Amino acid sequence: MRATVLVRPKDGILDPQGEAVESSLRKLGFDVQSVRVGKVIDVEVQADGTGPARAELERMCDELLANPLIESYEIHLDES
Amino acid sequence: MRATVLVRPKDGILDPQGEAVESSLRKLGFDVQSVRVGKVIDVEVQADGTGPARAELERMCDELLANPLIESYEIHLDES
Repeated sequence: MRATVLVRPKDGILDPQGEAVESSLRKLGFDVQSVRVGKVIDVEVQADGTGPARAELERMCDELLANPLIESYEIHLDES
Repeated sequence: MRATVLVRPKDGILDPQGEAVESSLRKLGFDVQSVRVGKVIDVEVQADGTGPARAELERMCDELLANPLIESYEIHLDES
């Protein structure tokens, strides 16, 4: 089953990459108010149904994909 | 207007970060077939309506956010 995981810096956590992108976009003339940069991780995982797949992906996030102290994550399952 | 941009390595383009994550997930015991890693960029942009916002974001992607030779991008506007 295919899944997309979005990992983002939590609100209030410094995001130097986002700040650099924001500043570059402004220098290029774009009118942006805020930019935050995180990771998108596309995973093809072996699981019986969406429930077990989601549980497995949550474990992956907790153990490796995200740092729960400073990052939040969102799991989207492709159920097609 | 808030927007989320997903920037991913194109199919066939080497993704060392994805390979490293895949190998680490397997070592942790997860049954994954493939992993690809890209960027998620949340942008708050000033624009009159969704049409102009999307056009502005496409320009940002072409000029800075994505490398069109090796990356594809997807724009999601938060129209709420």
